[in-house]
Amino acid sequence: MTTTLNPASTRYGELIARAVRICVAAQVMDFNGHVSGRDENDPNVMWINNRHASRSTLTAKDVVPFDIAAGKRIGEGIEPPSEWYIHAEVYKRRPDVHGIVHSHPEFIRALSAVGEILRPVDAIGGYLPGEGVPVFDSPVLINTAARGEAMAKALGVAEALMLRQHGAVVTGFSIENAVVHMICAEANAKMQYQSLQIGKPRYLHGEELKTIASEGGGKHGTTKYWTYWEETARKAGALNGL
Amino acid sequence: MTTTLNPASTRYGELIARAVRICVAAQVMDFNGHVSGRDENDPNVMWINNRHASRSTLTAKDVVPFDIAAGKRIGEGIEPPSEWYIHAEVYKRRPDVHGIVHSHPEFIRALSAVGEILRPVDAIGGYLPGEGVPVFDSPVLINTAARGEAMAKALGVAEALMLRQHGAVVTGFSIENAVVHMICAEANAKMQYQSLQIGKPRYLHGEELKTIASEGGGKHGTTKYWTYWEETARKAGALNGL
Amino acid sequence: MTTTLNPASTRYGELIARAVRICVAAQVMDFNGHVSGRDENDPNVMWINNRHASRSTLTAKDVVPFDIAAGKRIGEGIEPPSEWYIHAEVYKRRPDVHGIVHSHPEFIRALSAVGEILRPVDAIGGYLPGEGVPVFDSPVLINTAARGEAMAKALGVAEALMLRQHGAVVTGFSIENAVVHMICAEANAKMQYQSLQIGKPRYLHGEELKTIASEGGGKHGTTKYWTYWEETARKAGALNGL
Amino acid sequence: MTTTLNPASTRYGELIARAVRICVAAQVMDFNGHVSGRDENDPNVMWINNRHASRSTLTAKDVVPFDIAAGKRIGEGIEPPSEWYIHAEVYKRRPDVHGIVHSHPEFIRALSAVGEILRPVDAIGGYLPGEGVPVFDSPVLINTAARGEAMAKALGVAEALMLRQHGAVVTGFSIENAVVHMICAEANAKMQYQSLQIGKPRYLHGEELKTIASEGGGKHGTTKYWTYWEETARKAGALNGL
Repeated sequence: MTTTLNPASTRYGELIARAVRICVAAQVMDFNGHVSGRDENDPNVMWINNRHASRSTLTAKDVVPFDIAAGKRIGEGIEPPSEWYIHAEVYKRRPDVHGIVHSHPEFIRALSAVGEILRPVDAIGGYLPGEGVPVFDSPVLINTAARGEAMAKALGVAEALMLRQHGAVVTGFSIENAVVHMICAEANAKMQYQSLQIGKPRYLHGEELKTIASEGGGKHGTTKYWTYWEETARKAGALNGL
Repeated sequence: MTTTLNPASTRYGELIARAVRICVAAQVMDFNGHVSGRDENDPNVMWINNRHASRSTLTAKDVVPFDIAAGKRIGEGIEPPSEWYIHAEVYKRRPDVHGIVHSHPEFIRALSAVGEILRPVDAIGGYLPGEGVPVFDSPVLINTAARGEAMAKALGVAEALMLRQHGAVVTGFSIENAVVHMICAEANAKMQYQSLQIGKPRYLHGEELKTIASEGGGKHGTTKYWTYWEETARKAGALNGL
Repeated sequence: MTTTLNPASTRYGELIARAVRICVAAQVMDFNGHVSGRDENDPNVMWINNRHASRSTLTAKDVVPFDIAAGKRIGEGIEPPSEWYIHAEVYKRRPDVHGIVHSHPEFIRALSAVGEILRPVDAIGGYLPGEGVPVFDSPVLINTAARGEAMAKALGVAEALMLRQHGAVVTGFSIENAVVHMICAEANAKMQYQSLQIGKPRYLHGEELKTIASEGGGKHGTTKYWTYWEETARKAGALNGL
Repeated sequence: MTTTLNPASTRYGELIARAVRICVAAQVMDFNGHVSGRDENDPNVMWINNRHASRSTLTAKDVVPFDIAAGKRIGEGIEPPSEWYIHAEVYKRRPDVHGIVHSHPEFIRALSAVGEILRPVDAIGGYLPGEGVPVFDSPVLINTAARGEAMAKALGVAEALMLRQHGAVVTGFSIENAVVHMICAEANAKMQYQSLQIGKPRYLHGEELKTIASEGGGKHGTTKYWTYWEETARKAGALNGL
């Protein structure tokens, strides 16, 4: 099968490069990690940063198209990260997902190392489930189909998944939404971590959580947050040469 | 009722833009949060940053006048933040208050998440009551009159209020004083937080607290502190283009 | 009594301005705090930064000479800090002291708030006594002769003193040595604080501490450390315009 | 005995200067610490930064050749650090070692001060032994042959050694590998430290650790990591003038 890319889809290169740079500037991604987006012109195509290009200087040409069903890069050039299974297996099972971020944020990892589950403690984590996010109970690389499937099953219908002693996977209804979800997940993890250092945090739940979740998030919330972090990254010079 | 603004009151735009930038530079405000000031030419008018403009690049034109009794923006243009009730309800009840800051400082939030009350541990928190500040026991947005009233009642005659898992509201006899109070509240919260990590802090109280409070604070203390943080913000480039 | 200053003593202005800037760059001094030095041409004269000038932009002209016995600034102009008693009372009692730093380092204050005594945990704190430094048990400003005397007695023959919930006073055989002592005291306090967060630190003592103390410190150690922090401050631009 | 240096060996000067700068930029080395490499043209020769030159501005001319068997600098000029015994004693016993780093990373020191052993908690520490690294139980300078021998025996066949309340020594199959090992050891120590603040970390072990170790590390992992930190250092200006 040959997948023909819609010319309009080239916009994904620039958008994903920008998304990765914003993640690096917001300190939720380092020299590993990837952002992908599902092609709106072909739901079987995803775009993802390649395995070699530095995350902090990524440009559109470092983003590659990928055939989800075939499990293969489209066209020639540098391959996607060995963990592309994370993205492909989720896109296969979740038609509602159009953006995914996988990275290794510090506070999410610290919580996972002691068996604490990421749970909402603040409005910034208001999109997280009150009972806590699911956990994939293994620290190994997700670089085989079997591991990818197991991980996608652990995620289920959730928007965020902890990978024990490894990192996190978050989804979104768009690339921007997935980036916002990752930044908010780590911000909530930091507050949760800081609270745990001095006591027993009161987690948000029930009616209170419902109210908070309804007052933030969604399309409006995504635009507001994305704009803020994009602007912050730009002021710090993190988008230069994009 | 039409409120006619005194031409001299335009100075509030520049002052509040400066105050917001100083709060951002001092890391007690991020992409949300607001500073307001009561108009000395009309106690029923307050000035506040609008809901959209980026806090880190705010200028005078992004500050809007507001009719407190009528609960409405004066003139046309971008609206104030949805949480303007915080400010209006306090100005209605507290003729001594001429400046208010609401934001989400990290250490105040962390204390609140585990039920610790902000109490003075250092000279920098010398203006706080020995028994601790009052707490508004809800993390939801204060975007209705009922929530604003409840919050204002929780504040009572105090100068600082914790909003559980949300942030803080502080008042001042001037805009500058409110800013200084917020920065000092968070600095004290940080020391309290750090102390709680390794033991049981000895809180300042009684005669000792009285002596400390009398040696700092007030008009003289406000000028000294404001000048320091303004200068620090300027050196960091945070006031460029103001 | 009129004190006539030796023309050669003007070198103290530049040296103290440099010392204060190095303390600020090394994060052991903020907008308060002072460095003084005893005049080698007249042991009754000390030089100290004045009460108003910003610590981060201090220059030689902001440093004032002071008559220790008379308890008065020499000449006209801006006064020394209200806490000049700290310096005068120590110089009166300690002919071996030629430099003093008073400031409010974060980790020393945090330790003091929970009753932990500063004790050597690392080679960088090797000059501290094994049993811990003395503590002045009050957080008030030391702005009277009585408080200055009490503080000087608490210091005794030691080189470092904790001021409970206030800060620290350290002495040196030179201005450079006092600055090095303050930076090392705070570096040791940070390691002590970090260790206390996760367990019970093993404090250095006995023969081990003697060996470590003999291998660092003194005139050679002072020059090495001062040079490092001076160079670090210069690279960060902290000495510009000195 | 006169050791004649192979002209090709001059490349070690530039490489070690670069390695030291990368360590400083990655915050695993401060104003003390050293990097050495065994000369591939003569296994009895090692190259090491001299004792005086600032670690953050080191250049090739500040790196000196050293005769391991004779225990003497080759040629004239500034001497190596007084702790050259660390390097010489390890090279004598370990033909597999071609690079060594000794420094005083903050989190490794904090762990050592409370008796915690560095153990793998994350993929970044996957090269560490599951049971934890060996510990040299003394904080004194390793500036004699006896101390160097004792330390080398404590290290044994391991790749990383904690020096109690002092720092760490790590080895590598190349200079680059030793640098990567030190940065990864400290990154793991930080995660271990952070986890210990809020609970009991689950250490990696058994099959899980084997899988992780086999998926990272080695020659390929070294190149990837070294490139990332070198690039990070360059962007921060840390390699200017090299």
